[in-house]
Amino acid sequence: MVNARVYAAMARPLVGHLDPYFLEILEQVQQDLRTVFGTANPVTLPISGTGSAGMETCFANLVEDGDEVVVVAAGVFGTRMCEVATRLGARVEKVDVEWGRIVEPADVEAAIGRCRKPRIVAVVHAETSTGAWQPLRELSRIAHEADALFLVDCVTSLGGCHVGIDELAIDAAYSGTQKCLSCPPGLSPVTMSARALEVVRNRKTKPRSWYFDLGLIGAYFGSQRLYHHTAPISMVYALAEALTVVLEEGLEHRYRRHERNHHALLAGLAALGVQAAAQEGHRLWMLNSVHVPEGIDEAALRRRLLLDHGIEIGAGLGPMAGKVWRIGLMGESSRPANVRRVLLALESELRREGRRPPAGEAIAAADRVYAERD
Amino acid sequence: MVNARVYAAMARPLVGHLDPYFLEILEQVQQDLRTVFGTANPVTLPISGTGSAGMETCFANLVEDGDEVVVVAAGVFGTRMCEVATRLGARVEKVDVEWGRIVEPADVEAAIGRCRKPRIVAVVHAETSTGAWQPLRELSRIAHEADALFLVDCVTSLGGCHVGIDELAIDAAYSGTQKCLSCPPGLSPVTMSARALEVVRNRKTKPRSWYFDLGLIGAYFGSQRLYHHTAPISMVYALAEALTVVLEEGLEHRYRRHERNHHALLAGLAALGVQAAAQEGHRLWMLNSVHVPEGIDEAALRRRLLLDHGIEIGAGLGPMAGKVWRIGLMGESSRPANVRRVLLALESELRREGRRPPAGEAIAAADRVYAERD
Repeated sequence: MVNARVYAAMARPLVGHLDPYFLEILEQVQQDLRTVFGTANPVTLPISGTGSAGMETCFANLVEDGDEVVVVAAGVFGTRMCEVATRLGARVEKVDVEWGRIVEPADVEAAIGRCRKPRIVAVVHAETSTGAWQPLRELSRIAHEADALFLVDCVTSLGGCHVGIDELAIDAAYSGTQKCLSCPPGLSPVTMSARALEVVRNRKTKPRSWYFDLGLIGAYFGSQRLYHHTAPISMVYALAEALTVVLEEGLEHRYRRHERNHHALLAGLAALGVQAAAQEGHRLWMLNSVHVPEGIDEAALRRRLLLDHGIEIGAGLGPMAGKVWRIGLMGESSRPANVRRVLLALESELRREGRRPPAGEAIAAADRVYAERD
Repeated sequence: MVNARVYAAMARPLVGHLDPYFLEILEQVQQDLRTVFGTANPVTLPISGTGSAGMETCFANLVEDGDEVVVVAAGVFGTRMCEVATRLGARVEKVDVEWGRIVEPADVEAAIGRCRKPRIVAVVHAETSTGAWQPLRELSRIAHEADALFLVDCVTSLGGCHVGIDELAIDAAYSGTQKCLSCPPGLSPVTMSARALEVVRNRKTKPRSWYFDLGLIGAYFGSQRLYHHTAPISMVYALAEALTVVLEEGLEHRYRRHERNHHALLAGLAALGVQAAAQEGHRLWMLNSVHVPEGIDEAALRRRLLLDHGIEIGAGLGPMAGKVWRIGLMGESSRPANVRRVLLALESELRREGRRPPAGEAIAAADRVYAERD
């Protein structure tokens, strides 16, 4: 769900990408992104593409042929990092993690041990494909002990929970607009530390990608305002308004809201006999992966939820395909009314499949969580 | 200028990128893009980035390390092609052309002669930086005689003049949404012929870019609907409506409108003592580059046009910096009211600079063109 104010902002009349009015908005977007990322990094800006464009931007600028990169692959997006980095010439040292679980820091240390001198240790903060989040503080320490840059995918976490780029000494991070920032998809916020920028500056070769070259993009965002490519004006209008909405709510309030709705949803689902799939203690607030109850045609039920109830939930991916559902509660969508709506819809569909959950118990269980956490 | 219907479409509520409703819209966008491009190519789709993303998509998919590419560099965007292709591993054979003039076919033949076996001959159809367009038919013949693919940048031409992908045997082309399609920037329509796709299929290495990998993107647009990256839903809504507006007007009518307003503008400017800068007989209809009159502070005058008259015109770029203005008349903006508005504004600003153009003569000259071409 997207706030009506964001839709209205997006439909405002276009101006040129060098128009003083637009440049003011761009400045404000950068400032607000710094606040949400928790960073003072001057290079904090929206890349003109969706979340994966941010991933490609980070690797294209930081990696040169033959560089070693340690990637924690605990889901679709960690696996994608390996593919993106390899194509850009990196030698990837992959740390395989069972989907839905968190990485063992010792496994990352072992992977670093197999490298001569890794340039990057990369991890996905909140894996949308599995519903688990990875412990950043420990990984940051390990990366920096190896004198590597620490790169984090914050696509699903940014705006829904604390990210803390500076506090956790994250050197490079990217996100997307369409998750917990509740803005339409189309931009990818990226931030880079001074340390990461030094690596970019000291490259021996130009980045393989011209479109995602941060040196060139930075010259447009910087005081020179050098033309690189035409910024997607309407999307920037939308992001500016979405960030205003986020900061008006207040970051802490927003994070608590995500946490509370997550617990209410899981309590309600448990009453329906539907159990969380990700590792306990490490479950995302914004993306709830749950086991499909035995004997249910999960695709058919998902389709009925969409067509008969107007609720879209995600399918399982990779090794979790057919086994889990992924229920998003992100940004504007993370609200008690939606928790109740999905619980009622699931209860009715499970009854249709011959299950007999105790009537009204799901909503009651969710309400108990809301009462406790008031 | 963007049609109000396009803004309204862009602000419609989001659905998921695999929602059947969205997939229908995507299908319609592909169909309408084929009509505007003049092609039956199945792979005709909007890339999730602005125009330069389309350029990078074409080169990233068609070029492998060491491939030879002949590029006609007659302005900013031809020069950018050289840079993009080089970074992706191509050996570029550049054909330098004086900015504002058209290429000599013999020079392209000579460049091909310096290659072992060029994979691509690439050219910008309508150079926004200079206001001249290049002769495609002759270049297509030369490219195919050398058994190379013919790649064309249609960023500024698509929707404003005939492009004719199939008729001219163009193998790969890209465009942008924000020029003559009159849609906000954010997507890059791309089309590839069967011949180009065969080159993609026979690659020995994967494209350097994962985000722009047409094999993966095509699997989402194709019947499999495989997830690659989240499509920028709102931008696709906008493009769908913009294409509907274009096709409701009718392509031929739209092209004649661009041609007519161009001639009216040039006639009016001549009455103000402002002369066209691009080679005669090869001047773009949608982007009019004109010589800055002797002794005028061009940047100051441009700024007054923007701030006092609400009219943005472009500065000269590269060797034309400080010497020309670039006046766009693209899509929705190409209309007699805008021609008159810019003539009146320029007349008033030139008077302020002490020039004495005959009063009312600019509008009268434009009106004579309209009367002749009615």
